[in-house]
Amino acid sequence: MFRINENYLKLPGSYLFAEIKSRVAKYAAGHPGRELLRLGIGDATRPLAPAVVDAMKLAAGEMGEAATFRGYAPDYGYDFLREKIAEHDYRRRGVAMQPDDIFVSDGAKSDSGNIGDILSADNVVAICDPVYPVYADTNAMAGRAGDYGADGRWDRIVYMPCVPENNFVPELPDRAPDVIYLCYPNNPTGAAAGRGDLERWVGYALERGALILYDSAYEAYVTEPGVPRSIYEIEGAKGCAIEFRSFSKTAGFTGTRCAYTVVPKELVCGAGGGVGAAVAGGAGGASGAMGAGGSVAAGVSLNALWGRRQATKLNGVSYVVQRAAEAVYSEEGRKGCRAAVEYYMENASIILAGLKKAGFSAWGGVNAPYIWLKAPDGLSSWELFDLLLDRAGVIGTPGSGFGPHGEGFFRLTAFSSREDTQKAVERIAAAGLL
Amino acid sequence: MFRINENYLKLPGSYLFAEIKSRVAKYAAGHPGRELLRLGIGDATRPLAPAVVDAMKLAAGEMGEAATFRGYAPDYGYDFLREKIAEHDYRRRGVAMQPDDIFVSDGAKSDSGNIGDILSADNVVAICDPVYPVYADTNAMAGRAGDYGADGRWDRIVYMPCVPENNFVPELPDRAPDVIYLCYPNNPTGAAAGRGDLERWVGYALERGALILYDSAYEAYVTEPGVPRSIYEIEGAKGCAIEFRSFSKTAGFTGTRCAYTVVPKELVCGAGGGVGAAVAGGAGGASGAMGAGGSVAAGVSLNALWGRRQATKLNGVSYVVQRAAEAVYSEEGRKGCRAAVEYYMENASIILAGLKKAGFSAWGGVNAPYIWLKAPDGLSSWELFDLLLDRAGVIGTPGSGFGPHGEGFFRLTAFSSREDTQKAVERIAAAGLL
Repeated sequence: MFRINENYLKLPGSYLFAEIKSRVAKYAAGHPGRELLRLGIGDATRPLAPAVVDAMKLAAGEMGEAATFRGYAPDYGYDFLREKIAEHDYRRRGVAMQPDDIFVSDGAKSDSGNIGDILSADNVVAICDPVYPVYADTNAMAGRAGDYGADGRWDRIVYMPCVPENNFVPELPDRAPDVIYLCYPNNPTGAAAGRGDLERWVGYALERGALILYDSAYEAYVTEPGVPRSIYEIEGAKGCAIEFRSFSKTAGFTGTRCAYTVVPKELVCGAGGGVGAAVAGGAGGASGAMGAGGSVAAGVSLNALWGRRQATKLNGVSYVVQRAAEAVYSEEGRKGCRAAVEYYMENASIILAGLKKAGFSAWGGVNAPYIWLKAPDGLSSWELFDLLLDRAGVIGTPGSGFGPHGEGFFRLTAFSSREDTQKAVERIAAAGLL
Repeated sequence: MFRINENYLKLPGSYLFAEIKSRVAKYAAGHPGRELLRLGIGDATRPLAPAVVDAMKLAAGEMGEAATFRGYAPDYGYDFLREKIAEHDYRRRGVAMQPDDIFVSDGAKSDSGNIGDILSADNVVAICDPVYPVYADTNAMAGRAGDYGADGRWDRIVYMPCVPENNFVPELPDRAPDVIYLCYPNNPTGAAAGRGDLERWVGYALERGALILYDSAYEAYVTEPGVPRSIYEIEGAKGCAIEFRSFSKTAGFTGTRCAYTVVPKELVCGAGGGVGAAVAGGAGGASGAMGAGGSVAAGVSLNALWGRRQATKLNGVSYVVQRAAEAVYSEEGRKGCRAAVEYYMENASIILAGLKKAGFSAWGGVNAPYIWLKAPDGLSSWELFDLLLDRAGVIGTPGSGFGPHGEGFFRLTAFSSREDTQKAVERIAAAGLL
């Protein structure tokens, strides 16, 4: 008799967006003709840059001719793309990076979920609170989270509160975790981590032998000089951190699907418990990179482990999509993507300024497309949701949906149109909430 | 101190294709100017159908306009594609199927690897021998395979020999497995399973409470009437089987990436050990489909579990690629894809007839693009590889690379050009091996 992975049965329903949808549907049914402004969605709305579209069309044409048709892509991405990434996203910003440290994939969500495959189920995991739900959910599926309590927390996960008092950058936890998820610029709070913050984390991880899983999906939204866009801007980070990057928010690829994960060859695990077996070399050597009972004594290369995982469970990313991603780095492509990011950040700035002018406490919106708003008068996140929907016709996301420390907060996003964004801010200010 | 998943250290190197590459490179260096014919690759070589290319270009254009731009795709695939799949691949062939039984993904390799996420690590797994290596490797990664022995076998996996004596369709094993991988039409042997074979397997699985993971990536290559293309053509299969399908070989999508997995809503697990917790409903309801401690007592829906896995660890498939896949079902698309399959199958027929005429024992090639050849005179698979390379300049794949029962066999594929295929057969016949 086959058995399922019973960890799945412990998962709470992800009711956040379903609940939002249901409340909005009910409200809309009761208020026909009422214009609703959607500032809840974390999804690109601006079209792809013309250079990117042209590259896709060209690649599609190549796939239709025998002479230029492409079959299976290289497991870790085409060199043309891995080289562009290493050059533009790292080396030109002063961070040494080799193409074979980079693994191209269909999404940062896939990678940040799948990365757990190469880690022991015994690791203690630390996550921020509030946080993007995928980190906790995927660890729960792997049996790393323990049990889910009535307090909305998993009993084996270390939660790190992110609140106004610490500028939404957590303290170093006293219960030492093995694996630490950090996401900056942050979803949902919109906070950025400074160089000093990241130095503290890298130092802590190196000292304790912890692994940092760094999600920098929003790096393109950094506008303040000096704010790190990559964990690898910090000395020593290649020895303790994996970084997730995506074209989703940088280039509007949420529906096009391309991302990459950096697993530096310098990143080595002693394999705990003294399992001295070694995995030689990087994953660049394709399927030959792993060897059971190998003899290089230094430890296990995570680059080789991830390479093995990806080569076994993925068949590369669509050629057409990789050509589209490559075009993001062309001069025209960069201009186009930059224009979309600036459009969204102008929205963010309008929201932040408008809320502050109206007397709200609000954060984020400077280095991230998210604005994190304190619900006034001790309102709960869902109470504010209902009030904004009713009085302003504005749809946002209740902060409590991102974790217990999100209670009493509310997320607005910069991904709407300029017109809707302006209208939403005016309506919120006029809603008589303060 | 973080720890890795030590199961990865047990994996043997996947040296098969690396070793082939290395021997070919060495030979080529010693024989400059020698024309080598590559019949080892299981990868499409014919271009995409014009209707598919046009659909991709059109979709790329839509992504470049604000009015038609698409952000995140639905987690399980666009309805326009799921409906086409249900209609064309199932209902028109007499198999009832709902779109919400179908999960669109980037590849059957991903799905057949990731499916293990929703299954307990305690299940005993059965695989064919010889076999596509992903089944064993992904189970080894999940700790389901035990230890790898000097005999080239994992000690917790049940191996089912596929040999000429059983027409390459295995006997029912006496050591009862919980999860059974079957792939028909088969890679590497090219064998097809008959209706009676599949009825036997479905009956066995239903009786024992086993789960069949059915890989029908090559169903488009079936030419003989009556050979099942789907496990669901067998009564009762929806209660015991998951099916993997791909556009890779059907429509030349190896480099375009689109596939789907069918997890019928009828497929329910008692959750072993009497864990009566239930997961209500299908995954159609998106994130609301799972509920810890739910109260529907019947068992756990694998459709809901897989839906939860995909919604948590995947962000859907590229819009452009889904439009391309949709076009496979248009009249023009079907014609184009059919023409490519027929081209390959004409190659298969040329190889099979040529080998038989020359006196070889050979199988497959009628309902699959693979020809499985017995090495003459007790030669080993690698000895035949070297001889064919040297005497005929033909590159194939040693059967021993697919498992111990592949020793003494050799795989040739139909994916080369007509000209190279014909030339290869003539050269093999003239190589003096018989």
